[in-house]
Amino acid sequence: MTEPSRKVSESTVRRLSLYLWVLEELGEAEVATVSSEELAHQGGTTAAQVRKDLSIFGSFGKRGLGYSVPLLSREIRKILGLSRTWRVALVGAGRIGAALFEYPNFRDRGFEIVAVVDTDARKVGRLWDGVRIRHASELEDVLRESEVEIAILAVPGRAVQEVAERVVSVGVKALLNFAPVQLRVPEDVVVNHVNMAVELEALSYALMNHPREDSSA
Amino acid sequence: MTEPSRKVSESTVRRLSLYLWVLEELGEAEVATVSSEELAHQGGTTAAQVRKDLSIFGSFGKRGLGYSVPLLSREIRKILGLSRTWRVALVGAGRIGAALFEYPNFRDRGFEIVAVVDTDARKVGRLWDGVRIRHASELEDVLRESEVEIAILAVPGRAVQEVAERVVSVGVKALLNFAPVQLRVPEDVVVNHVNMAVELEALSYALMNHPREDSSA
Repeated sequence: MTEPSRKVSESTVRRLSLYLWVLEELGEAEVATVSSEELAHQGGTTAAQVRKDLSIFGSFGKRGLGYSVPLLSREIRKILGLSRTWRVALVGAGRIGAALFEYPNFRDRGFEIVAVVDTDARKVGRLWDGVRIRHASELEDVLRESEVEIAILAVPGRAVQEVAERVVSVGVKALLNFAPVQLRVPEDVVVNHVNMAVELEALSYALMNHPREDSSA
Repeated sequence: MTEPSRKVSESTVRRLSLYLWVLEELGEAEVATVSSEELAHQGGTTAAQVRKDLSIFGSFGKRGLGYSVPLLSREIRKILGLSRTWRVALVGAGRIGAALFEYPNFRDRGFEIVAVVDTDARKVGRLWDGVRIRHASELEDVLRESEVEIAILAVPGRAVQEVAERVVSVGVKALLNFAPVQLRVPEDVVVNHVNMAVELEALSYALMNHPREDSSA
């Protein structure tokens, strides 16, 4: 019933993620059911959109009763591919890399960081929660040995294209890029971005161009 | 010539950010000029798009000679509102908050973290690079005293809506939200998101639905 084969839009996938966060918070609070209105509120959308998003995959709700929190959580996890574990490499063990490594939500969601590499010889050999940091010169070997499926790129912008090419060369098909640089990769590789600086600069632009009472040139 | 008054699309603003990152890397390497092709390559777009993006604001380039790196950097900084300093509060001094605080690029770009608050009594009173961590119960006072213009919300999802409302209540008009929750805010408040978990889950979905040779159900 939830064959992950139909094409759904990227924005639907992102909303499903948001619904799942709500559902898991409700689950922890031992709430049994949730309405599409409530999911809509948390997901920043409308109840009609929630029903439409969920109807793509089957019928999870009962009219007037809402959705079962544990059932819907499980189904969305399945849809998103979170009912299995993904083997993730962290490329770059700097500040951002360290914060990511410790981000508890990654592991909870089935993303296991099985390899860490860095160019800094002082870090190489250290153990992070059981994972030994390896030198970036061994990147390809590390990725192969650890059977990595997803690479998180937390390296400087000037290095990231080359790193991406090396990662892709050993068959990794999914990259999460933290550098503020667009990557050129083969068509069968998926790249998503997390770009804190760009988001902050977009805020700056919006504030500059805001009609405000106290605006001064 | 670069009055920040025209409406430009969000995607243009984001591309300007990316061009600026490239320009600053080139500037550090003491490169004097750059072609629209080179900017396009780094910004993941076409040379025609680069010329179009930059033409909105004036004419920065000379046909055949390319753009002056220092001049174009300065103009884009002006456009994005980065030629001034923004006063930023960090709400939430957990792992993500700490990584953000130390992220060198924020300060370089004119985002100065002038206030940090947290609910953890053990953290309150500590100095982070000269900024004393204050208790979240004093949030409104802290924001007012420090004349905060932008708030970074690095708090758990279940808390973020309430925190956002408190922040907005004292007149802050720009939020950068790290929690995987859509915020409800008044229309004149701008919210941008950085959602690492959602990006990773979108990768998971893409991998699940990828046509791969080695796919197994």
